[in-house]
Amino acid sequence: MPAKNEPKTSGRFAYEGLERVIHEKARLSIMASLAAHRDGLLFNDLKELCALTDGNLSRHLQMLTDSKLVEVWKGYKNNRPQTLCRLSREGRKRFLEYVNELENVVADAMAAAEGAKRRSIDPDFSPA
Amino acid sequence: MPAKNEPKTSGRFAYEGLERVIHEKARLSIMASLAAHRDGLLFNDLKELCALTDGNLSRHLQMLTDSKLVEVWKGYKNNRPQTLCRLSREGRKRFLEYVNELENVVADAMAAAEGAKRRSIDPDFSPA
Repeated sequence: MPAKNEPKTSGRFAYEGLERVIHEKARLSIMASLAAHRDGLLFNDLKELCALTDGNLSRHLQMLTDSKLVEVWKGYKNNRPQTLCRLSREGRKRFLEYVNELENVVADAMAAAEGAKRRSIDPDFSPA
Repeated sequence: MPAKNEPKTSGRFAYEGLERVIHEKARLSIMASLAAHRDGLLFNDLKELCALTDGNLSRHLQMLTDSKLVEVWKGYKNNRPQTLCRLSREGRKRFLEYVNELENVVADAMAAAEGAKRRSIDPDFSPA
C-alpha cells in the first residue's frame, strides 16, 4: 500500500508486460491450456478445455501462429485427419514472462486488500 | 499437470471469472491503481500511474462508470476544478473476484512450468 504522499511513479500500474496478443481472454485460455499440455492438444480437446466455438478457436489460433507463439500441425490419428496445436519454444518463454507480470497484478491487489483490512480492524492505522 | 489420459474437463481453462470489462489492459491498470489508493486518485495522477493519454483514460473511465465499477466526482482543489476517481463498493468486490481468477491462471501456469522442470531433470519422470 503506497503512502498517501508517495510521489506517483509514472506507469507504476501500467503493467507493460501484459502482452496484448496473450492477454485477450480467449487467447489467454488457449495459451494456458497448451502450457499445461506440453505435448500439445488436438483441436477438439483444446476447443473443449477453452469452451470456444470452432470459428473462435480457429481465428485466435491464427493470430497466435502469426505471432509465432503457437504451432499448428496437420496429420492423421486413427486414420482421421487431425490438427495438433502446441506452444512454440518462443511461446513458452513469452507466456512465462506474461505470467510473471500477472503475478505483479495479483501482488498489488493483495497488498491493497491487506491495507484495507488493517484499516478496518484498527481505525487509527495509517500506512507509514 | 494433468495426466496424459485424464479426460478433458470442459471449460477447465476457460477462466470465466475474468470479467471482460476489467480484463482489458488499460482498465485493469485503472482498477489496480484505484484498488491501491482507497481514497481515490485525481484524474492526472491516475493518468500518470497508468501511462494513459487523457482521451484513453476518459474513454475507459466512462466504461467503468457505466458498469458501476468506478465513481467519478467533480470538485475543486486549490481553487482548481479537479476530477476524483475511486472504486465503488461493487467495483472493489468485483475486482477481488477478478483477481482470484487471475490467481488460478498463475497457479495453472506455475504447475505447468514445474511439470516441465521435473521432466527435464528426470527424463523418466511421468505425471501420475
